Amino acid sequence: MPSASSSFQPRFAIIVAGGSGTRMGTDRPKQFLDLLGEPVLLHTLRRFAVPGLGIKRLVVVLPADQVATWEVLCAQYPAVPPHELVSGGTTRWASVKQGLAQLGHETAGTVAVHDGVRPLTPERVIEATYEAAHNHGAAVAAVVPKDSVRNLSQQGSYALNRSRLRLVQTPQCFELSLLRRAYQLPELNTFTDDASVVEDLHPIHIVEGDYRNLKITTPEDMLLAEALLRTE
Amino acid sequence: MPSASSSFQPRFAIIVAGGSGTRMGTDRPKQFLDLLGEPVLLHTLRRFAVPGLGIKRLVVVLPADQVATWEVLCAQYPAVPPHELVSGGTTRWASVKQGLAQLGHETAGTVAVHDGVRPLTPERVIEATYEAAHNHGAAVAAVVPKDSVRNLSQQGSYALNRSRLRLVQTPQCFELSLLRRAYQLPELNTFTDDASVVEDLHPIHIVEGDYRNLKITTPEDMLLAEALLRTE
Repeated sequence: MPSASSSFQPRFAIIVAGGSGTRMGTDRPKQFLDLLGEPVLLHTLRRFAVPGLGIKRLVVVLPADQVATWEVLCAQYPAVPPHELVSGGTTRWASVKQGLAQLGHETAGTVAVHDGVRPLTPERVIEATYEAAHNHGAAVAAVVPKDSVRNLSQQGSYALNRSRLRLVQTPQCFELSLLRRAYQLPELNTFTDDASVVEDLHPIHIVEGDYRNLKITTPEDMLLAEALLRTE
Repeated sequence: MPSASSSFQPRFAIIVAGGSGTRMGTDRPKQFLDLLGEPVLLHTLRRFAVPGLGIKRLVVVLPADQVATWEVLCAQYPAVPPHELVSGGTTRWASVKQGLAQLGHETAGTVAVHDGVRPLTPERVIEATYEAAHNHGAAVAAVVPKDSVRNLSQQGSYALNRSRLRLVQTPQCFELSLLRRAYQLPELNTFTDDASVVEDLHPIHIVEGDYRNLKITTPEDMLLAEALLRTE
C-alpha cells in the first residue's frame, strides 16, 4: 500500500524499448513479439496502467523507425492504456533522456524507468520500488543470483560472495529531480542501466524483485513468459 | 568432438542432489518432482548416459533418507541408465566427497560434478566441459548474466562490470587427482560449488554454458523446464 505521504508525490513511468530482435533470432523487435495474443510491450504497459499504482503519466520510448509499427499495433488491440509516445535515441541512455524531456514541465514526483521487454513485473514490485525511491531517492528491484558467480581474471576466474550480489531488474525508480540531474552529465560507456547513471550522485537502494520479473532476451525467455502468464 | 587424446582418459560423473523442496513449496524433494512424466533426477541422469559422451561410471549421491525413494522410482521407469548410488553427507561438499570416495580405486581420468536438478544440460556443454578439464585441469560451464549486477555496500550498492562476470552452472569438470586433492582440505563455509573448492589449488577455466541449462530452484523453473523440454 502506498503511504499517505507518497500520495502527494505524483508518479511517472518511462518505458524504454530499443531491441532489434537480433538475439531472439527474429526479424521482429522483441517488444513487438506476440505473447499469448498481445505484443510484449502492451503487456508491459498494462502492468503500469493498474489503477492502484496511481501513475499520472506513462511515457513509451521507441526507436524512431518503430513508432509507426507501434501505432498500427495499438489500433488493433482493445483498451490500450493511454500513454505518450516518444522517439528514442541511438542508445538506451539517449532514449531515457528523451523520455525525461517529455516530462519537462513536471516539477516534482517519482519516476520509474522500466524495460519494455519485462512484461511480467508484479504490481507488488512496482509499488515497492516507487515507495523506496520516495523514501530513499533512488531504488531498484533486484534478486539474489541463483547460481554461483565468478569474476574472470588473468589466470582463470575467482568466486564472488553471492550473498552480497544482486541481479538488477527494472523498475528503477528515482526522485524526478535526481534523475534529471544525473542525465545532465555526459554519457559513459559503463552505463548499463539507470542506477549506474545515478550512482555517482546518490546511493542506490535495493528492493526485493521477483524471479518471475524476467527480461525477454533469448527465445527461452518467451517460453517462460508464456508459461508464467498461463498460471496468472 | 572429443580429441583423440581424451579418449584414453576415462570419464566419470558424480551427480549430486540434496534438495529438500523447501524453496519449491513442495514436500517432495525437487529432484523427485515429475517433469513431463519422469523425475527431474532421471532426466539429469539420461543427459550423462548419452553414449557419445563415453562416461565410464555414473555416481548418484542422495541424502540417506532419499535413497529408498529413488530405488522405488527407478523400478517404475523403463531403461533407467546404470549408475552407482551413494548416500551423501549433510552438506553439498560432504556429498561430493562421498561421491569421490566411490571412485576410490580409479587412478586417472576426468570427473564431472553435476547438479541433480539441472535436467536440461545440452550434450554440447557436457562434452566441452570434459574437454576443457582434460586440457586445463579444471573447467566449469557458465554464462554471462543477462541483467546488470550490483554489489551491496555500506551506503547502498555499486555496479559491477557485467562483461567480466559469469553465472556458474554445472557440469564442473576436473582432473580426478586434482579434485581428490582439493577435497582432502577442510570444508569452508565459502564453498558454494566445486570450483570454489578447487580454486586455491588450480585456475578455473570457463566454458560457454547455455541459458537452457537451468537449475530447478523455484516453481517457475519447473514451468520453464517443461516448456523447454516440449521444444526438444
